[in-house]
Amino acid sequence: MVPHLITALTGPINELEARILDSMPAIERWFRLEWMEHTPPFYTSVDLRNAGFKLAPVDTNLYPGGFNNLTPEMLPLAVQAAMAAIEKICPEAKNLLLVPDNLTGNTFYLSNIRRLVQVFTQAGLNVRLGTLDERIKAPTKLALPDGDELLIEPLLRSQRRLGLKDFDPCTILVNNDLSDGTPQVLRNLHEQYLLPPLHAGWGVRRKSAHFHSYEEVAKKFAKLLGMDPWLINPMYGQCGEVDFTQASGLDCVQSNVDAMLTKVRRKYKEYGINEKPFVVVKADNGSHGAGIITVRDAKEIAEFQQRCAHQAEVQDVTEVIIQEGVPTYERVNDAVAEPVVYMIDRYVVGGFYRIHAERGTHDSLSAPGASFVPLAFAESNQLPKPGVKPGASAPNRFYMYGVIGRLAMLAASYELEATDPDAEVYD
Amino acid sequence: MVPHLITALTGPINELEARILDSMPAIERWFRLEWMEHTPPFYTSVDLRNAGFKLAPVDTNLYPGGFNNLTPEMLPLAVQAAMAAIEKICPEAKNLLLVPDNLTGNTFYLSNIRRLVQVFTQAGLNVRLGTLDERIKAPTKLALPDGDELLIEPLLRSQRRLGLKDFDPCTILVNNDLSDGTPQVLRNLHEQYLLPPLHAGWGVRRKSAHFHSYEEVAKKFAKLLGMDPWLINPMYGQCGEVDFTQASGLDCVQSNVDAMLTKVRRKYKEYGINEKPFVVVKADNGSHGAGIITVRDAKEIAEFQQRCAHQAEVQDVTEVIIQEGVPTYERVNDAVAEPVVYMIDRYVVGGFYRIHAERGTHDSLSAPGASFVPLAFAESNQLPKPGVKPGASAPNRFYMYGVIGRLAMLAASYELEATDPDAEVYD
Repeated sequence: MVPHLITALTGPINELEARILDSMPAIERWFRLEWMEHTPPFYTSVDLRNAGFKLAPVDTNLYPGGFNNLTPEMLPLAVQAAMAAIEKICPEAKNLLLVPDNLTGNTFYLSNIRRLVQVFTQAGLNVRLGTLDERIKAPTKLALPDGDELLIEPLLRSQRRLGLKDFDPCTILVNNDLSDGTPQVLRNLHEQYLLPPLHAGWGVRRKSAHFHSYEEVAKKFAKLLGMDPWLINPMYGQCGEVDFTQASGLDCVQSNVDAMLTKVRRKYKEYGINEKPFVVVKADNGSHGAGIITVRDAKEIAEFQQRCAHQAEVQDVTEVIIQEGVPTYERVNDAVAEPVVYMIDRYVVGGFYRIHAERGTHDSLSAPGASFVPLAFAESNQLPKPGVKPGASAPNRFYMYGVIGRLAMLAASYELEATDPDAEVYD
Repeated sequence: MVPHLITALTGPINELEARILDSMPAIERWFRLEWMEHTPPFYTSVDLRNAGFKLAPVDTNLYPGGFNNLTPEMLPLAVQAAMAAIEKICPEAKNLLLVPDNLTGNTFYLSNIRRLVQVFTQAGLNVRLGTLDERIKAPTKLALPDGDELLIEPLLRSQRRLGLKDFDPCTILVNNDLSDGTPQVLRNLHEQYLLPPLHAGWGVRRKSAHFHSYEEVAKKFAKLLGMDPWLINPMYGQCGEVDFTQASGLDCVQSNVDAMLTKVRRKYKEYGINEKPFVVVKADNGSHGAGIITVRDAKEIAEFQQRCAHQAEVQDVTEVIIQEGVPTYERVNDAVAEPVVYMIDRYVVGGFYRIHAERGTHDSLSAPGASFVPLAFAESNQLPKPGVKPGASAPNRFYMYGVIGRLAMLAASYELEATDPDAEVYD
């Protein structure tokens, strides 16, 4: 199924698509050279927003769920990419310990874990599941809707290693975004490969650090293609000491929102875009959509504070990122859609549309809602079809998504290098 | 389309299939460890014969044609594998010079070349075609049946480098099996990557050297799985000084045929196989099916010599390999079928059935014939489905084919190391 591409059939995005297709060998070589200097995250998913006039990543997830939403046709690609990743990191590996998110009976997430078990088993590893949830004291079977079961086991920590009963892995793959901080049981594992590294967890990571790196990547890439980086880069600002409950630090947020709206307005004017600019204010850490507000005027910050000061979701927010809002004009049937790109190692292995029938073009779609229906890209669409008119071909559109997804992945690589607490400093 | 699997639904092959599936993580790890020590050929195709009681490679091609026979669904896998291969060999590469076989208007082969251009372009290289055919003095367009065209150009050789007009490649990929010997224009290119190396050409390579290496690989693999290597290994002998035109050296061939038939008979008895053994005698070099004879009795060698002494195809044969015949009992509809597995770098990227309606189960199918119809495996079938009854599942059968194909590729890697004229000797 090829989703409807109702994004503008003329305009900057199609120029971008044409330029990206024309430059394919140069782009792929540029990525090769970047990966000679930088290590890709083990796995990554990137949420994109396609405004027609602009295409930008809005969230880069280093603990991707949702692998179950890829089509079976994409599975061989994921397995092959996993083989390449393992071969580089730990070719001698026999056992992989997968540490999922705390399993709350979300069968979509269980299906994601089952898919990851399948990918890494087929890539040649014995995979078992160990949970951070200390309430689980014995091996526990969790049922999937189709009758299949996953066995989840309590972690066993020794002085130097982490494993399960009768299972000593050389590699530990975490699929829990560690929003609540770094668990003690994962610290100081110097004998085993821990993927991703602990400073990729949301207890440590900051969105602003990611977009700082992304801006650098976008500028380099834009230079390669001879284009304005703004076409792929969402502008951002940050405020470090905010307290919505006490209404303190809000002046920083307001002045950032104001400045951002001015910058966006200027860009819209430059490109003749007839849109009302908006910005998104969200917690600088954390993976959840909760707490995201969409603002069209700096005054709305004060109103939000008064309305929401006592809501649980803003209580812990002390740092915020103020980001240029990028509308999404892509639709699947009648629902607003956001493309999500999945990568293992440096390879795009698939993707899908996140759609949300009850949300608008300016809203975050990464929100709770029964109508959230992921839709896999049609098979093979990550490969371009040169010669087809820009905007008219799903494969070409998806190749472009794969390029922007990989730019965000590269930014995550820069980000993790810059924030590595164990990095040696050479200057 | 899942081809009919009419191979016996019980017996050794299904035991082998079950054992291979059960041992999947161990097998994949074993390959990983082998690839730490050995370099895979850049690309490889392997012809297999499935007798129901035995599954064996019969030809390992280091200049594979037929990439056009893979389905479009397999293309992303090929591109990803090509990206991994390039990244390892020459990440900084911009330009790839592809040297095809001399183009004789065979549009199947032209489609193969187009597919290779597509794969390596999408992997991020500027690809152009340079021909060894010295009759081509200027850039020449060759038409494909669908109206597409390929531009083929004369090679330009300087003292140290090979290229085309205004095209200086860092990598040269040869898709011409060099049966007529090593062209001068390809010698002494020490500044560029020449793939595969010149000693992979059929002017230098010997089938007996390949099967010597394959025997070693098959024994290692059989030890890993605790099984008889004969189930995957075709026995062979060789004779080095044969002249069919003068009837000299035939005693060596006859005694080898006799000994081989005795060995095969013993194995058939051991496994209760109710078949008449046969052996195949063929030139020890060369890629073509021409000159292959199927023999059920050593006396047939003398008859063959008398009948064919003056045929052109035996004139140049001075070395022969005597190989255990492996019947193929796989059929697609009513035609006898041979699976062919395609690999780029260490990865299985697809495969198809070579079928030949006018040939029998004991004949070589790699023969000229209008009814030669390659048939792509169904998509994604290189991934196994654990838990399905052996013999009943196409994916599991094809996973097994991929494993045996990779064993033959590993043997080619051993073979190329052993025959490398530039190898440093450490003992």
